Amino acid sequence: MTKAKTKNWVGFDLGGTKMVAVVYDSSFKVLASVKNKTPMRDGPKAILARIQETLSAALAAAGVEPANVRGIGAGCPGVLDLDKGVILEAPNLGWKKVPLQSLLKEWFASDVVLLNDVDAGTYGEFMFGAGKGARTLLGVFPGTGIGGGCVYEGKLIRGKSGSAMEIGHIPVRENGRLCGCGNRGCLEAEAGRLAISAEVAQATFRGEAPYVAENAGTDLKKIKSGLLAKSIKAGDASVERIVRNAMKLMGRGIGGVVNLLAPDVVVLGGGLVEAMPDLILEEVKQGMKEGGMASMVQPLKIKVAELGDDASVQGAAAWAAAELG
Amino acid sequence: MTKAKTKNWVGFDLGGTKMVAVVYDSSFKVLASVKNKTPMRDGPKAILARIQETLSAALAAAGVEPANVRGIGAGCPGVLDLDKGVILEAPNLGWKKVPLQSLLKEWFASDVVLLNDVDAGTYGEFMFGAGKGARTLLGVFPGTGIGGGCVYEGKLIRGKSGSAMEIGHIPVRENGRLCGCGNRGCLEAEAGRLAISAEVAQATFRGEAPYVAENAGTDLKKIKSGLLAKSIKAGDASVERIVRNAMKLMGRGIGGVVNLLAPDVVVLGGGLVEAMPDLILEEVKQGMKEGGMASMVQPLKIKVAELGDDASVQGAAAWAAAELG
Repeated sequence: MTKAKTKNWVGFDLGGTKMVAVVYDSSFKVLASVKNKTPMRDGPKAILARIQETLSAALAAAGVEPANVRGIGAGCPGVLDLDKGVILEAPNLGWKKVPLQSLLKEWFASDVVLLNDVDAGTYGEFMFGAGKGARTLLGVFPGTGIGGGCVYEGKLIRGKSGSAMEIGHIPVRENGRLCGCGNRGCLEAEAGRLAISAEVAQATFRGEAPYVAENAGTDLKKIKSGLLAKSIKAGDASVERIVRNAMKLMGRGIGGVVNLLAPDVVVLGGGLVEAMPDLILEEVKQGMKEGGMASMVQPLKIKVAELGDDASVQGAAAWAAAELG
Repeated sequence: MTKAKTKNWVGFDLGGTKMVAVVYDSSFKVLASVKNKTPMRDGPKAILARIQETLSAALAAAGVEPANVRGIGAGCPGVLDLDKGVILEAPNLGWKKVPLQSLLKEWFASDVVLLNDVDAGTYGEFMFGAGKGARTLLGVFPGTGIGGGCVYEGKLIRGKSGSAMEIGHIPVRENGRLCGCGNRGCLEAEAGRLAISAEVAQATFRGEAPYVAENAGTDLKKIKSGLLAKSIKAGDASVERIVRNAMKLMGRGIGGVVNLLAPDVVVLGGGLVEAMPDLILEEVKQGMKEGGMASMVQPLKIKVAELGDDASVQGAAAWAAAELG
């Protein structure tokens, strides 16, 4: 057995629709990758069984014994207690108080590090993607909500026991829309994909978005990022206006965050950005000028994420390596 | 000469009205302190001469030779280039591109560290005051503007070459008041002391603030923190309403910052807070609930700064020690 073999790292990304396990060698070359659906309908226990199965399959495919795994990094949704390694609540998974860290430790007799999935994606872009070499990297991932992460001088900024960088919940509009968090006017309530889809559904109902009317109708669930992009391409002007307004407002919010963190690189990722990167970059840049100080905004680089869906799993493994050494 | 003598630290705080130099021993006991007026009317060169004089006087009073100074930490206003140790612009001092770090090095043959004055104050509260032991400390200092600083896991968060944590310039109101930075609706344009004073001057003009009318009139320059506190005590209800609204809005802005940084302690300081701590704490707490997520806001402690004017000079010296070791 070579010495390098004892330094394999495993990344795991747990999502509401799928989960991915990737086994890396000590220099982060991919040895094997296994993807499975998250069995949402079968309940929390079935999800845990699938996690064990997915990681075991990836290790088997890589020909790596658990004993030769130096550490597992797992990117998780929801509210985490990082000190205890517990997922306190993950509504997407129907989970409450799941001690994932100790379960993984038990199953694979390996060191385990949990982190928030958006933090994992941000760290992945920092190590291997669009944020490489940044002193301060701000990652913003508009999706159903709007997730954020920050790597400062090589380390993720996190809360005492959980996540930080809840950029989706900075207040951007007084007396604005009610947000899932209970407050009003949060960035994601005003400019997240769900907020956009709700406005588009209204426009569709009013007959202002023929492409959406024909291809999705007025059901929020069907008005997703790809469809929004197609509708804009097809000439639904009201949809373009709605998306541009939202992304400009998001840029304004990001400008405020830039004033606080003075990042040298801002990376935008996630499904909405992947679907229409140019339009979003344009509006975010404009919004950032309105919300951020010129001295902070002018010198920074704003980029589109490079790793797509792989950012979180790569970042989770790399963060485990950073934490466990 | 004892070994301890070679580990003296010097703190310097450069303000628009006064400057302070303090000499500490290796365990941060004060050996001597000298305060002088900043000779604003005599121009930039006179200010530099006064800085040299003030530091020399403090060293002499402490009986410490420059050769026995391990390092000088200088808290400075304005926009800094921390890499080069240059004050790029300090409107309060009439300064542009002053290489203060190399001047201090030359004069005292000592290592020198510059930092933003609000950062210095935040670090001072972290090391010696209300923020002792915090994992993540957010300092907010409403004054003419609203300054902010953050200590994360023992280190100040700073920009690549200058300050970060420009909390006064996060956008809190769309299409709001024009701010000195050129944007609209920045926190300090809406809720800083100058914004409060401007509203109070209007109320005074309308005859709604008899105490202010009698003791200051409608001149912005005369409507300062102490006067505002006295006017509220004297029963100027409109002044109380204006201050409460502004501080609640500030709390809302701080709530957004809390969502990003997940601090365990928030320290409020500066003249306005010192003049009416209870009223301000009450409104800031209320605003924080509206702008911050319950999971972030509930566990944190919010405190009034403990070191007053000394925070910056102590913080500057301690930061020099942290950076130079």
